[in-house]
Amino acid sequence: MPYQLLYWPSIQGRGEFVRLALEAAGAPYVDVARGDASSGQGLPALSHYLQDESVTRPPFACPVLVDGNQVIGQTAAILLHLGPRLKLVGASVADRLWTHQIQLTIADVVDEAHNTHHPVSAGLYYEDQKIEASRAAKEFRTQRIPQYLGWLEAVLARNPKGDQHLIGARLSYADLSLFQLVAGLLYAFPKATKRALKKTPRVLALQDRVAQHRRVSAYLCSERRIPFNEDGIFRHYAELDA
Amino acid sequence: MPYQLLYWPSIQGRGEFVRLALEAAGAPYVDVARGDASSGQGLPALSHYLQDESVTRPPFACPVLVDGNQVIGQTAAILLHLGPRLKLVGASVADRLWTHQIQLTIADVVDEAHNTHHPVSAGLYYEDQKIEASRAAKEFRTQRIPQYLGWLEAVLARNPKGDQHLIGARLSYADLSLFQLVAGLLYAFPKATKRALKKTPRVLALQDRVAQHRRVSAYLCSERRIPFNEDGIFRHYAELDA
Repeated sequence: MPYQLLYWPSIQGRGEFVRLALEAAGAPYVDVARGDASSGQGLPALSHYLQDESVTRPPFACPVLVDGNQVIGQTAAILLHLGPRLKLVGASVADRLWTHQIQLTIADVVDEAHNTHHPVSAGLYYEDQKIEASRAAKEFRTQRIPQYLGWLEAVLARNPKGDQHLIGARLSYADLSLFQLVAGLLYAFPKATKRALKKTPRVLALQDRVAQHRRVSAYLCSERRIPFNEDGIFRHYAELDA
Repeated sequence: MPYQLLYWPSIQGRGEFVRLALEAAGAPYVDVARGDASSGQGLPALSHYLQDESVTRPPFACPVLVDGNQVIGQTAAILLHLGPRLKLVGASVADRLWTHQIQLTIADVVDEAHNTHHPVSAGLYYEDQKIEASRAAKEFRTQRIPQYLGWLEAVLARNPKGDQHLIGARLSYADLSLFQLVAGLLYAFPKATKRALKKTPRVLALQDRVAQHRRVSAYLCSERRIPFNEDGIFRHYAELDA
């Protein structure tokens, strides 16, 4: 039975980290909320998992993965579940935990990137918090992007199996997430991110390699890849980059 | 060999979720950064794990747990590792993932609570972002605290094994984290949190029960429990509560 992914149908958002893993592995899945409500898909299917009292283990938010009778929320928890099934993580318990730790750190950057355009509240429009966003984005650009990319560079440099992958000598879901993080940062803050990437050549090279992965590159060219846009997490507002 | 926990020595912060698990289980551990630098502990020991190039798998930030030769960062990843060892999680893979999912959601609230006093940047002082903080705190108080506590209430209400615990019929690290979350919210936003808790009686009852757990209550009365203060994540600024 194909995996069911439930996420907002018009943005990459956090769902994209799950989509990339499923696509890179060539796993069968249905992007449910992008389907037709008349066939039991679409947004009503997403609402069901978030709101119906019949869901014994309700996710607080999407993305949600349905695997048989298991309903899983939280992006990193979904990838923890999928990793071994999609062969996108090493075999040892220690490697799996380390991969997860990197994923959680990438999730932290993603939260901070979202916070640059929504520093006051995710419940308000960007237009209602532009002044705050300007200050938040400056800190993120000048301090956090270099710190986080620098940390990923160190992880690559110190990998005993070489600097081609974050963990071991094979592609993992953390590599895919690094790709998505860098792609998002380049979209949202092209000037600041290109500047930071000059000091993190291994991160840049890994991002390129993932983009050229056979299944990933096919996915990126397909209609299944939603373009970045200003409803997502990574938003390009020229006034926030420098 | 005792576990080594490395975290800022003067705040509860994210380290407290790990401390509570270790304390509730009666596990031997050393709170390293609170020790003496002359005996190899203190802040230099923390810096070692965050900065030395000899650390093959460097955490981006603390808390850090050292278990034998394994160095683990990210609070939720540390609890994922400790859960089975401390018998603070169910035996089934599905229960363990669900417990982790709840922990990750609690971590999201904690991030948002921190964001109320540091909406622009964690790198700036509160005094330099007070105006932004006022707006962020209002959204958090009126929208997010009720939403998150309401979700935890639903998790308790829907637990097939009863509403005494978040997962199954035994204490888990997620229950301990719920305790810490509610304690922190009550410290930082007493008015708003008490109002929200009136609608979530199961959450309130579980928080009370955890506080009365034999080892937890002994810990809370000990000097090992650092008091809440305005350097931590949960800060009481009267102007941010209402």
